[in-house]
Amino acid sequence: MTTMDRFSFNQATARDWRMPEMLAGCAAAGARWVGLWREQVAEYGLARTAEAVQANGLAVSTLCRGGFFNTDDWYPSNRRAIDEAVALGAPVLVLVSGGLAGGSRDLSAARDHVTRAVEALAPHAEAAGVQLAIEALHPMFASDRCVICTLAQALDIAERFEPRAVGVALDTYHVWWDDTVYRQIDRAGAGQRIATFQLADWVTPLPAGVLTGRAMPGAGCVELGRLWAAVDAAGYRGPVEVEIFNDEIWSWPGDRALSAAVDGYRAVSAQLPTPA
Amino acid sequence: MTTMDRFSFNQATARDWRMPEMLAGCAAAGARWVGLWREQVAEYGLARTAEAVQANGLAVSTLCRGGFFNTDDWYPSNRRAIDEAVALGAPVLVLVSGGLAGGSRDLSAARDHVTRAVEALAPHAEAAGVQLAIEALHPMFASDRCVICTLAQALDIAERFEPRAVGVALDTYHVWWDDTVYRQIDRAGAGQRIATFQLADWVTPLPAGVLTGRAMPGAGCVELGRLWAAVDAAGYRGPVEVEIFNDEIWSWPGDRALSAAVDGYRAVSAQLPTPA
Repeated sequence: MTTMDRFSFNQATARDWRMPEMLAGCAAAGARWVGLWREQVAEYGLARTAEAVQANGLAVSTLCRGGFFNTDDWYPSNRRAIDEAVALGAPVLVLVSGGLAGGSRDLSAARDHVTRAVEALAPHAEAAGVQLAIEALHPMFASDRCVICTLAQALDIAERFEPRAVGVALDTYHVWWDDTVYRQIDRAGAGQRIATFQLADWVTPLPAGVLTGRAMPGAGCVELGRLWAAVDAAGYRGPVEVEIFNDEIWSWPGDRALSAAVDGYRAVSAQLPTPA
Repeated sequence: MTTMDRFSFNQATARDWRMPEMLAGCAAAGARWVGLWREQVAEYGLARTAEAVQANGLAVSTLCRGGFFNTDDWYPSNRRAIDEAVALGAPVLVLVSGGLAGGSRDLSAARDHVTRAVEALAPHAEAAGVQLAIEALHPMFASDRCVICTLAQALDIAERFEPRAVGVALDTYHVWWDDTVYRQIDRAGAGQRIATFQLADWVTPLPAGVLTGRAMPGAGCVELGRLWAAVDAAGYRGPVEVEIFNDEIWSWPGDRALSAAVDGYRAVSAQLPTPA
């Protein structure tokens, strides 16, 4: 395998790059995979996106994102997201649970509701051949974006279901700080639960609002090579996405963001016992 | 017990309020306790601060803070901090571990070093009658302020020592998101490890740099009453500090910040099965 065989460009890294140019750019860079976002897919058109992915010889690694179970229309919205994943040939739908419902302080109730929501969606996902990937977001997002804060929590929910129906999304940015992360990666791998692996690095100071503080792989303090090696050792063989939310990178031309993502991916890959 | 019997005003809440006015203000408000910071104590003078605390009929609940074990002079600095706690009659010295050493990505090594540092300091603390309180900071501070990110981690270290030498500092702001927090509070209480309990609330959006995003008790989304009740149920009977880092509150006159802290404390106390 060459390095690029597992590289996936998550389009959130170049948020404003138009879909056809983004897909052509990925193909030209030698990528085989892309991670897509529902908003961008809807804007360009679902069928049209699926055709363009194919025409460029690409495959979709993940569709981002379902979840936000604290909204009124979570059920129909997530059903549609599963159907969109099918239309795009995406094997994985990433779920970001959503935060507390407006005005509520009851984290336990919010977390119970996430379990019930996944339970409601799992049969449709399984029948459709789409694996739901519960993502733990960094605890700084607990109130407003994701009440699932650790890999252990995501696995506690996922393990209630068949692995082909429900796994976890593992993003280095969100889990690197956790002193139990290597144990949880082993647990996730042993249960065939690693649905996707994403690389992003941590830098300080965080910007206001904290959403867009992520950095290209290698630019921060996360032991990305150690985490990737652990994920591989746990049996994961799938695509490795680079997904960076960063205001400065969003101001770049798309091909510059893609090129930086490829460079970061290669640099981390070179730290593996057996580079990808 | 009246509500004010357990209230402690941590002076970081009114960072720029001069020591003598702050202490007089606390006494006038009916407080019995204050939490002090080494920088402010040094500025006013150690002996002079100790005298002023006594003259106002107050006692020191905690001295903040030791730690920052990633600095070159951590050992003499923390020895001095223990001696300062003795001089102030403070039974507890709060330890914030510090982040990664400059340029390092090795979280495991940084964490091992924290354990060794506490080991080096514990005999002096025990002999001095000062309990070291290992504080878990929110994981968003893992790289630059504190590699101890969860109550479980803090307890894993504390439990290597006698409870009178090493406990944990439990600040709602830092631990509220953790789905294991109630289990860990029970564990901490059973082992007599709760050295101090601090109230601060979580609000979004976080400001740039994230340090000063805390809110007065009741202004945010944390189940403060449930956490306090759990801490009491675990056997803690000590002071409850209000410690808020917030740029807006720092711009207020000190007595306004104190008054808001008392109001927040009383409002949370009123939610307890048996109000303090």
